[in-house]
Amino acid sequence: MEALYYIDLIGTFVFAISGVLAAIENKFDLFGATILGLVTAVGGGTLRDVLIGATPVGWMEDINYLILILLTLPICYFFQSHIKGLRKTFFLFDTLGIGLFTILGVEKTLNLGLSPAIAIMMGVVSAVFGGIIRDVLSNRIPLVFRKEVYAFACLAGAIVYYILISFNGTSEINVVVSILVVIIIRILSVKNKWNIPYNPLAS
Amino acid sequence: MEALYYIDLIGTFVFAISGVLAAIENKFDLFGATILGLVTAVGGGTLRDVLIGATPVGWMEDINYLILILLTLPICYFFQSHIKGLRKTFFLFDTLGIGLFTILGVEKTLNLGLSPAIAIMMGVVSAVFGGIIRDVLSNRIPLVFRKEVYAFACLAGAIVYYILISFNGTSEINVVVSILVVIIIRILSVKNKWNIPYNPLAS
Amino acid sequence: MEALYYIDLIGTFVFAISGVLAAIENKFDLFGATILGLVTAVGGGTLRDVLIGATPVGWMEDINYLILILLTLPICYFFQSHIKGLRKTFFLFDTLGIGLFTILGVEKTLNLGLSPAIAIMMGVVSAVFGGIIRDVLSNRIPLVFRKEVYAFACLAGAIVYYILISFNGTSEINVVVSILVVIIIRILSVKNKWNIPYNPLAS
Repeated sequence: MEALYYIDLIGTFVFAISGVLAAIENKFDLFGATILGLVTAVGGGTLRDVLIGATPVGWMEDINYLILILLTLPICYFFQSHIKGLRKTFFLFDTLGIGLFTILGVEKTLNLGLSPAIAIMMGVVSAVFGGIIRDVLSNRIPLVFRKEVYAFACLAGAIVYYILISFNGTSEINVVVSILVVIIIRILSVKNKWNIPYNPLAS
Repeated sequence: MEALYYIDLIGTFVFAISGVLAAIENKFDLFGATILGLVTAVGGGTLRDVLIGATPVGWMEDINYLILILLTLPICYFFQSHIKGLRKTFFLFDTLGIGLFTILGVEKTLNLGLSPAIAIMMGVVSAVFGGIIRDVLSNRIPLVFRKEVYAFACLAGAIVYYILISFNGTSEINVVVSILVVIIIRILSVKNKWNIPYNPLAS
Repeated sequence: MEALYYIDLIGTFVFAISGVLAAIENKFDLFGATILGLVTAVGGGTLRDVLIGATPVGWMEDINYLILILLTLPICYFFQSHIKGLRKTFFLFDTLGIGLFTILGVEKTLNLGLSPAIAIMMGVVSAVFGGIIRDVLSNRIPLVFRKEVYAFACLAGAIVYYILISFNGTSEINVVVSILVVIIIRILSVKNKWNIPYNPLAS
C-alpha cells in the first residue's frame, strides 16, 4: 500500500509544523524549533518503538522523514501567517495523520507478537505522545490531558482496526474504515464540543 | 514465590491510584487520568527496562497489570472521598509496593549481568521514577527531589538485598528482610520527620 | 586513543557538576541533586543509546562514570563558592566535554550502520539532551531552546567530523580538529554574543 507511506509522510509533515508553530509562540530559537518540530512529529512513534523494543526507531531508517521535518522550518518561518489561514486544511491533514499513526502503531505492535490490548494502547501512544512531549518541553501541562477528545477518537479507531483485521486479515479497506472512524469522531466532537470530563470535583 | 506476584500487583494498583488522584487534583480529563495512573504505576519499571535493554517492557507481557490500572479509574471516580479516609492503609501498601519494586529492580538488573552498583541504582529507579514522571507530566518539580526521604529507604533496601543474596543466594527470607528495611526506614522517617537536606545555602 | 577516555570522564564530571549546582539552586535535597547530576552528565548519551538500540546504555558497563558523578556531590557541597570562581576553567572543560560527546555520538551511531544524517543528529543529541532533561526535571523551559548557540557548535563539529572521516578514515587528528571546531565556534559566539533567533514575531 504505497498510499499509506505518503499519508504517513504528510502526517509527519503536519505534526512537525504544529511543533514549529508552538516553538515560534514560545520564542524558541532555531535549535529549539528544530527539536520541537522533530519531537512533535516523531515523538509518539519513537516512544512506541522504544517501549516495544523496535530500535533503532523507525524514522532513523528512512531519511525522508528527517528531510520533511527540517523543511518545515523555512516554511513556517516565511509563511507563518498563511499557515494560520489554512487552519481547516491543517485540521484535516492532522486528523488524517493521527488516524494513520494509530493504525500503524497497532500494526507494528501486533507484528512483534504483543497482545491486542497492548497493540491498541500503542496505537494511541503513537498518535498522541508527540504532542505530549512537545507540551512537556514547552513547560506546559499536556493539552490532551485537559481539553482534547482526540485520544478517544484514536482509541476507537484502534479498536475498530483490530476487530476488522481479526475478521478479514490485513487489507486496505480496514485501514480506510478505521481512519474514517478517527476522522468522523474527531470532527463530530469538535462540532458538538464533546468532552469527556473525569474530575468529580469539577462537576 | 507466588506471593511476590500478588504484592507486585497490589503495589501497581496503589501507585496507579496515586496517579489518578493527582490527575483529579489537576482537573485532567479521563484520558489524562488514564495516562497519569499508568505512568505512575509502571513508569519506574518501564524506564529501568528501557535503560537495561529488557524490551518489550515487562507489563506488556502480562495483561493483569493493565487491567488493574484501568480499574483504578472508576474506583477513584466513585470512591474518591473514601480513599482519602484510607490514608494509613494506602501508606502501608504504597510502602510495601516501593519495597518490592526496589527488590524486583535489583533482581532483574543482576540477571542481565550488570554490576551490583547499577543493579542497586536500577532498584531505586524502579521505585521512584513512576512518581517523578507523574510530576513532570503535571508540570511540577518532582516531589521526591525536595521532601521525601523514601528514595533513601529504597536505596537502603536495595543494598541490604544485594548483601543478603551475596551471602545466601536467592531466598524468600532475603526479600522479606529487605522490604522490611524499606518499610521501617520510611515509617521512622515520617514519624521523626527525618530529612536529608543538601543545599548548603539553606542551612 | 586512551586520551579520549579521560576527556570523556572529565566531560562527564563537569556536566555532573553543572547538574548538581542547578539542584542546589532549586533547593533539591540530596536525592534530587544526585538525580540531577546524573541526568545532566549521562542523559544525552543515554537518550542516544536508547534511540539507536544500544542498550544496556554505555555508562552501565563502566562503573567509573557512576563513581565520578557521585563524587561531585561532596565536592559541590563543600566547595560551592570556589567552583563559581572557577567559571572560566569550567567553561573550557564543559566545551571540551560537549565537543567530545558530539564526536563519540557520531562514531557510535555510524558503527551501528545508521546513515550519516542520523549520526550527525545523534552527535548533537548526545551533547545537548543531558541539559534539556535537567531543565525539564527542574520545571523550566530548556535553556538551549532560547539562548544558547552551542547546539550549532556541536552540529558544525559533527559535520566536520563526518567529512574528515569520509576522507581519511578514523584517526586522532579528525577528533582533535572536530573538537577544536566546537570550541572555537562556542568561544567566538560567546565573545561576539552570536545568536540564532528564529521567531519571525520577535524581529
